[in-house]
Amino acid sequence: MGKKRYFIHPIGVIRSPFQNLEGMPIQPGAAEGARGSVILDRKYTPGLKDLEGFSHLILIYYFHRAKEYQPLVTPFLDEVQRGLFATRAPQRPNPIGLSVVKLLSVEDNILEVENLDVLDGTPLLDIKPYVPDFDQHGQVRVGWLEGRQSNIPGKLADDRFS
Amino acid sequence: MGKKRYFIHPIGVIRSPFQNLEGMPIQPGAAEGARGSVILDRKYTPGLKDLEGFSHLILIYYFHRAKEYQPLVTPFLDEVQRGLFATRAPQRPNPIGLSVVKLLSVEDNILEVENLDVLDGTPLLDIKPYVPDFDQHGQVRVGWLEGRQSNIPGKLADDRFS
Repeated sequence: MGKKRYFIHPIGVIRSPFQNLEGMPIQPGAAEGARGSVILDRKYTPGLKDLEGFSHLILIYYFHRAKEYQPLVTPFLDEVQRGLFATRAPQRPNPIGLSVVKLLSVEDNILEVENLDVLDGTPLLDIKPYVPDFDQHGQVRVGWLEGRQSNIPGKLADDRFS
Repeated sequence: MGKKRYFIHPIGVIRSPFQNLEGMPIQPGAAEGARGSVILDRKYTPGLKDLEGFSHLILIYYFHRAKEYQPLVTPFLDEVQRGLFATRAPQRPNPIGLSVVKLLSVEDNILEVENLDVLDGTPLLDIKPYVPDFDQHGQVRVGWLEGRQSNIPGKLADDRFS
């Protein structure tokens, strides 16, 4: 660990209707219907082969407007401070975000997607297929979020992380 | 896009029973019962507050032994070449991996987890809580993986990506 570090680079950009964090859906579950585009750097277009067979994708992106790491944050769905790793807040040691979105179409280097919960201009780091056998689990406990999930649909961000 | 790049750094290390890619479960679904530890750099321990309430975590990590990017790969569950972004293979433009694991315990800076499908010594980049309302989706199509998912339990990697 220590001083080791790695380089990563944007492989494209995410275009969304959200210019500012304030008013943005807090998660894909709150972003029902929010459409946007994933514009992949053209040199990666060949890697999109076979992607159109998948209904959902995992987008990995860089929280380019995140504030610096804080160990405790007050999440949008709560009023008290929680450990950063027990939240999805952006001010992480490595500001890497993850959203599962619905894939509407693939044309050349451009994906149209739905249920986007990211800022316009967000740098794209990776696209993975969403596979229930890998990514879905039963008998899940959600800690402090228990009983708060019903508040997600339509929930919009305020300015606390902007 | 272009020449822009970001630094990321390991925030800990993942200890697993798998010293080599060959023989490792190909996904958490094939890693049923494989236990390991996530050892977080001690300076991040305060960020683990509230995490023990969650039954499952999303681990984000660096594929430190991945070969360089290839647009087409032949995945473990297939015999033909697929677009890289339609697979979970490691040789991605940004070699960032993601696994949903079961959280068994949190003690100080060490998490015991189950259903691990990563190599021993894998650099940890982030820990996120797994939240079904964010991360689970119904009516999912899985493209080329359709009909192949039943082959995942117990499926082990061969040496094609090592």
